Amino acid sequence: MNLKARFLDISTEPLILINPGDAAQIGGKDNDRVKIDGKRSAIALLNVSDFAEPGEAILSANLQSKIVASDGDDLRIIYASGPESVRSIRKKMDNKKLTKEEIHDIVVDILENRLSKIEISAWLTALYINGMDIEEIAAFARAMADTGDKVEFDRTPVYDFHSMGGVPGNKITPIVVSIVAAAGLMLPKTSSRAISSACGTSDFVETFCDIELDAANLKRISEKVGGVFAWGGSMNLAPVDDMVIKVEHPLGINPRAQMLASIISKKLAIGATHLVMDIPTGAGTKVPTIEVAKAYARDFMDLGEKLNIHIECAITYADQPVGSAIGPKLEARECIRILEGQKHPSSVIEKACDLAGMILEMGGFANGSEKAREILDSGAAMKKFREIVAAQNGNYDIRSEDLVPGEFVEDVISPSAGYVHSISNKDLVSIAIAAGSPSDKGAGLLIMKKKGQRVERGELLFQIYGDSKAKVDRAKELATKYKPFDIEGMLLKKIAPPRTR
Amino acid sequence: MNLKARFLDISTEPLILINPGDAAQIGGKDNDRVKIDGKRSAIALLNVSDFAEPGEAILSANLQSKIVASDGDDLRIIYASGPESVRSIRKKMDNKKLTKEEIHDIVVDILENRLSKIEISAWLTALYINGMDIEEIAAFARAMADTGDKVEFDRTPVYDFHSMGGVPGNKITPIVVSIVAAAGLMLPKTSSRAISSACGTSDFVETFCDIELDAANLKRISEKVGGVFAWGGSMNLAPVDDMVIKVEHPLGINPRAQMLASIISKKLAIGATHLVMDIPTGAGTKVPTIEVAKAYARDFMDLGEKLNIHIECAITYADQPVGSAIGPKLEARECIRILEGQKHPSSVIEKACDLAGMILEMGGFANGSEKAREILDSGAAMKKFREIVAAQNGNYDIRSEDLVPGEFVEDVISPSAGYVHSISNKDLVSIAIAAGSPSDKGAGLLIMKKKGQRVERGELLFQIYGDSKAKVDRAKELATKYKPFDIEGMLLKKIAPPRTR
Repeated sequence: MNLKARFLDISTEPLILINPGDAAQIGGKDNDRVKIDGKRSAIALLNVSDFAEPGEAILSANLQSKIVASDGDDLRIIYASGPESVRSIRKKMDNKKLTKEEIHDIVVDILENRLSKIEISAWLTALYINGMDIEEIAAFARAMADTGDKVEFDRTPVYDFHSMGGVPGNKITPIVVSIVAAAGLMLPKTSSRAISSACGTSDFVETFCDIELDAANLKRISEKVGGVFAWGGSMNLAPVDDMVIKVEHPLGINPRAQMLASIISKKLAIGATHLVMDIPTGAGTKVPTIEVAKAYARDFMDLGEKLNIHIECAITYADQPVGSAIGPKLEARECIRILEGQKHPSSVIEKACDLAGMILEMGGFANGSEKAREILDSGAAMKKFREIVAAQNGNYDIRSEDLVPGEFVEDVISPSAGYVHSISNKDLVSIAIAAGSPSDKGAGLLIMKKKGQRVERGELLFQIYGDSKAKVDRAKELATKYKPFDIEGMLLKKIAPPRTR
Repeated sequence: MNLKARFLDISTEPLILINPGDAAQIGGKDNDRVKIDGKRSAIALLNVSDFAEPGEAILSANLQSKIVASDGDDLRIIYASGPESVRSIRKKMDNKKLTKEEIHDIVVDILENRLSKIEISAWLTALYINGMDIEEIAAFARAMADTGDKVEFDRTPVYDFHSMGGVPGNKITPIVVSIVAAAGLMLPKTSSRAISSACGTSDFVETFCDIELDAANLKRISEKVGGVFAWGGSMNLAPVDDMVIKVEHPLGINPRAQMLASIISKKLAIGATHLVMDIPTGAGTKVPTIEVAKAYARDFMDLGEKLNIHIECAITYADQPVGSAIGPKLEARECIRILEGQKHPSSVIEKACDLAGMILEMGGFANGSEKAREILDSGAAMKKFREIVAAQNGNYDIRSEDLVPGEFVEDVISPSAGYVHSISNKDLVSIAIAAGSPSDKGAGLLIMKKKGQRVERGELLFQIYGDSKAKVDRAKELATKYKPFDIEGMLLKKIAPPRTR
């Protein structure tokens, strides 16, 4: 039937609102598809709504350029069946292996907005439950890379590293990149912002330089200076991955197949030839035990073989935050202090040098870890860091003191004497987020005590920083409620025979 | 933060559109929840969109009464976490058994719009893949019934029957109800409209009487006359079921647990004490084989035991349509003709009497099927039918000739001579829908030949009726393309030795 168009920017999905009477005429129900013929044709999701007058079609603005039509135009609208890829999603629900072509079609249909949130959710749930084998994951990663932009370097090899995440305070990226680039290798590193964490690498890097590089700039700077600290989101690398994350997020799932394909797709898009995977392992992270970490390492190496990337894995300690700082300016300051030559926190220095060392060894250096430490201690890494910062429109003469955390501070002290038996990453992340991290750049935590250390009653455990008093107060409340530090005496439990009178 | 309200009827879900800058301030991403404080508070799904000006919140109209606010009001908006029931959905993804309370909470959260389409889709996909045991399904059915209206009869027992559907032309409901009520038993039958079929019971019953009865009228008429042919959708029986169907529909799945719970929840809501389940079995239906049918029968009887409903099951033949007519007026006419005493199509008469007979036997009659046939042949069923029609504001003196199918007719003839080897229900349904069924009341099919019958070349196989020439033409095209009748000679394949020269 024909309806009069009215465009409204109401949805990220291509959506059409039609009056119930008209919808019945078309034979369409909520969440069905209809085909809309303007100058060109497009498919949209049907929403049956009284908001549309009889004879009217309210269309999401994203359809306007697709169908080439204006408000008031007469559009022909007919029922349309769902995309073929829904069949492949059902096939995965039935725990069948998908072909390369089926996976590619699903990815393209997500990209083109032909699959709705309902269908993407079913896809992710099916992946979560039934999984994929390495061949499928490789095809999935390839399809996600192929449906986005790619960077093609004139200079090879292209080194890369990636942390699976889940551990707060993991501020090693600028250090690793600077060391590796100082050694003459190229490491065009793209990072992400926080999804559920307190502060992603891009969230703290942007406190001292631009992070939005287009592909041409990323290529130019990397080839010239040897490295970048770019935000992956500023390029159109494997864009389907970001679309899928939006649906994953409310479900609180991250299916193994999706996670592996997501990571590898970005590496394919950037043309990585050599990759070190950091697998943080510990309670409260994505990878709770060494056994799980080893299984991931196996998967990554198998994927590397299928996709022609040399991949090595590092299983790293993640039972507590890396270093002392959590939050954008606090992490940036700690990171730059280490580049300036400060000798602690040693957990950050050690992790950065170990990972940089693995890359250096891939690049032909002997004793990578010591070599990395040498480059850091010599000041060569700091010099390289300055070059990269300057190339990304930051201040070449940057100093750690330039990074000033939020003006509001609250101390969290130990209620008893004893030893730090455990620290909850998850609770610290929640507290840092409550304090305003990562959008409030001065917000975050500074941790004074780490696992195994002796603490006296009333001694400082950590400080909460923030740009807003209200948020810092709220974070302090959470700290009191959650008690992220477990402080115990050496004597954990006393066992004695029952007393006799 | 505080934003200025603007209400638009843009979504069936409670939705809030916020400018990207404001969303970052709140710390919310697409598909996150926010809490909105008007005079009262409500949770809504966040959509980050440039459609909202900075400082503005565009809210779906369904939120207006919930938060008690008007356009221009200043609303406090903060980040909110998802409902607890998302955890239970994840538990089902992990193939764990859910408690009664967890299932109840999921159902309540769907009802209250606290679970989004994304989450409902994940729930259905998890049910499809991991299933539920009978205890969970019983709790699920109970929860769906408890979250809607219920009918409480003063008269007992309450007989009911239900067809799992999937076979076109299944117009037996008014006949069964009339026979059973004529025998003095009470059968307050609620039916549905077509979801994916060509014509639901309510779609054809509404061609000769009202189908929208509220609970009070349904009770009154049933207790007085002995039966109704009501549309379930006009009451608020197990409303969550209808909400879930909207999400199931684009996925093309109907998880066993959901289907069983859906059927039984409606029976609990209406207070059925005795139920006959019709399980149509045959190629192209939900139940392809007798083995699958038996498994369903076992499930239904187990559920009945758990929920204190006496359930008996009938596995019925469904390899081809029941009777000759498909489509609202055509089915109504065929149904009334049989009540008037016409002796064919015998498949409809036999099925109606067999099912009515099972109910009569539950009610203490001997030889139910013969008794049912007796009541039909005596005219008592027609008399009871008229009483029910009149009670539902139809014409007591209704005659089958009052139902006149669409004025546009196309014949579909056999391209060859032979025997009808098979008929595709699925294709016939698509053709009937293309002809306009069920919204065009005169649209549908009239089938002249059934399985096993001899057909000559050029002989009529079926006719397509419709209220619109364009739709009938389109349906005819589909008929030519699909060839729903498989006509073969008796000799299916000739095998001969290779010829020698």
